[in-house]
Amino acid sequence: MSGRTARRRVLRVTLPDGGGPGNSASRGDLLAAEEPLGIRVGGIALTMTMRTPGDDIELAAGFLVSEAVVRSPDDIAGIKLCDGTACGHGDHDGLGNIADVTLAAGVTVAPGARRNFLTTSACGVCGKTSIQDICVLPHATLAGDPARFTPEVLATLPERLRGAQRVFSRTGGLHAAGLFTAEGELIAVREDVGRHNAVDKVVGWALFEGRLPLAGCALLVSGRASFELVQKAVLAGIPLLAAVSAPSSLAVDLAEEAGLTLVGFLRGPSMNVYTGAHRVLA
Amino acid sequence: MSGRTARRRVLRVTLPDGGGPGNSASRGDLLAAEEPLGIRVGGIALTMTMRTPGDDIELAAGFLVSEAVVRSPDDIAGIKLCDGTACGHGDHDGLGNIADVTLAAGVTVAPGARRNFLTTSACGVCGKTSIQDICVLPHATLAGDPARFTPEVLATLPERLRGAQRVFSRTGGLHAAGLFTAEGELIAVREDVGRHNAVDKVVGWALFEGRLPLAGCALLVSGRASFELVQKAVLAGIPLLAAVSAPSSLAVDLAEEAGLTLVGFLRGPSMNVYTGAHRVLA
Repeated sequence: MSGRTARRRVLRVTLPDGGGPGNSASRGDLLAAEEPLGIRVGGIALTMTMRTPGDDIELAAGFLVSEAVVRSPDDIAGIKLCDGTACGHGDHDGLGNIADVTLAAGVTVAPGARRNFLTTSACGVCGKTSIQDICVLPHATLAGDPARFTPEVLATLPERLRGAQRVFSRTGGLHAAGLFTAEGELIAVREDVGRHNAVDKVVGWALFEGRLPLAGCALLVSGRASFELVQKAVLAGIPLLAAVSAPSSLAVDLAEEAGLTLVGFLRGPSMNVYTGAHRVLA
Repeated sequence: MSGRTARRRVLRVTLPDGGGPGNSASRGDLLAAEEPLGIRVGGIALTMTMRTPGDDIELAAGFLVSEAVVRSPDDIAGIKLCDGTACGHGDHDGLGNIADVTLAAGVTVAPGARRNFLTTSACGVCGKTSIQDICVLPHATLAGDPARFTPEVLATLPERLRGAQRVFSRTGGLHAAGLFTAEGELIAVREDVGRHNAVDKVVGWALFEGRLPLAGCALLVSGRASFELVQKAVLAGIPLLAAVSAPSSLAVDLAEEAGLTLVGFLRGPSMNVYTGAHRVLA
C-alpha cells in the first residue's frame, strides 16, 4: 500500500485576462492517491473498489455492513490485509491490495445481496427490478429514532467537515464523509476518491468502536446524495444524512421509505430537507 | 423508464444572517432521476449501473466499448430495451430497466475483463493486482494521434459544456461529459448522475455514428478524473481528457502510459496539464 497522496509533475497554464499568449510553468503537484482494493470473504472475491489507500480494514468492514452481511464486530473473525509486499513476491508493483475477510461462524453472504439482483430477477423476459430488488435493507426502519437536529447546528457542519479534511486541502481531489452528534460535534471523518468508500470507512470505524447502530448521529457527505449512500446510512442506523449538493430521485424515495431524514444543498445557512423534516424542526 | 427528472416536495430552510429563527417553506423541487439499468449480454447479466434514464442503448453500447468488448457498430447485432411495461407485467413498478445486448457472431466478452480481476489474480496468497490486471486496455496507445489543442480553446470548453447541460440547470444534480473538436466545437453532450455513465453515453453515441476511434477530439467531464474515466477515453481513441476538478494519481499514471493528454482543474483561463503536454502547447 502506498500513501494517501502522490506527487506528480504538472504544467500549470494560465491565460492573461486581456488576451495574448499564456504563461506556463512546470511544478510538482500533490494528487489524491487512487488504487484498487479487492475485498474477499472466505477466500471468495466479493468486490473490487478503486479507493484512496488508508483505513482499508475499516473500508472492508464498512462495506460488509452496507451489504447487510455484518452487524456487529463479533460477526467478523478477522480481516487480513496484503499489500503485495508481505507475501514476499518482489514482482508485485505495490499498486493493489486485498482485504481478506474471515466471517464468524454462522455469518454468511446472503444470496440475495445486491450484486446478484440481475440474475435473481423474477421476470425472465425483462428482469423485474425495483427498489426492493436492488435494496439490501431489512424492513426495520429508522422511523423510531427520536433524534432532533436544529438548522443552526446543521448549518455549521460543512465548515467543520472541510476543516477536518486533511488530504483534500492538499489535493483538492477527495470526497469526505463526516459523522456528527446532534450537537454538531465531529466524531469521525474519512476521505476517499470515492464518496461511497469514505462512508464505508466511517461505518467500519463505528463498527469496531462498538457504536453501531449510529442512533442519534448525522452523516455529512461532500457532493451529491445517491441511492447507494442513503442505503449505507440506513444500514448503519444513522437517522440523518446531509449532502452538500443535490440528492437523486431514488435517494429521496428510499430515504422516505426508510424513515431517514435527508438534507441536500446544505451550504451554511440554507438547506433543503427532502424527507423526515420532523427531525430538523421539532 | 421514467424521465430524466422527477419532482419531489422539499422543505427549504434558511437561517437569517444576523441569527434568530429560520424561515422554512415547502415547495416542489426538480431532482435528477436515478434508476438501475441492468446490462445483459447474450442473456447473461454483465453489470448493473445506477443511472439517469435516457440514452440507455448508447449507455449499454458505450459500456461495452469501455470494456474492450466492442470496437465497431458491426460488433453489436442488437440491443433491446425492456422498461418493465413492454412485457406486459403490470406489477412492474417501472423503476428498473434492462438493456439486452446481442453481440455479432464471433464477438465475445473476454474472460480477462476487469470485473474478474480478483478471481484471475496470479498470486493465490495476496492477489497480484496492478494496472495491467485491472486495465482492459490493448497495448496500442494514443501516442500517434497528432491532434493539438490550444489553451485558448480549452479555456472555453467548461462554459460551453455548462451551456449545453439541459438537466443540470434545472436540478443541479448531474454530471456531464462533452465531446469537442480541436477547434472547441461541441459535438455531443450527455448527462447522468454517474460521471462514468455520461462518458459511456457519449462513447455509445459515437459508436453508432461510426465515429470511433474519436481521433482528434477532446472529452470534458464535470468533476474529477479517475482511472476509470481515463481508461474509457483511451478505449474510445480520444487523445485529450479534461476535467473541471482534480485527477487521481492512477488517472495520471494510466494517461502517461497510454499517451493521453490529461488536463485537470480546467477552470476558464487556468488549467493543469498532467500528461501529454505536447498536444496543448505545440
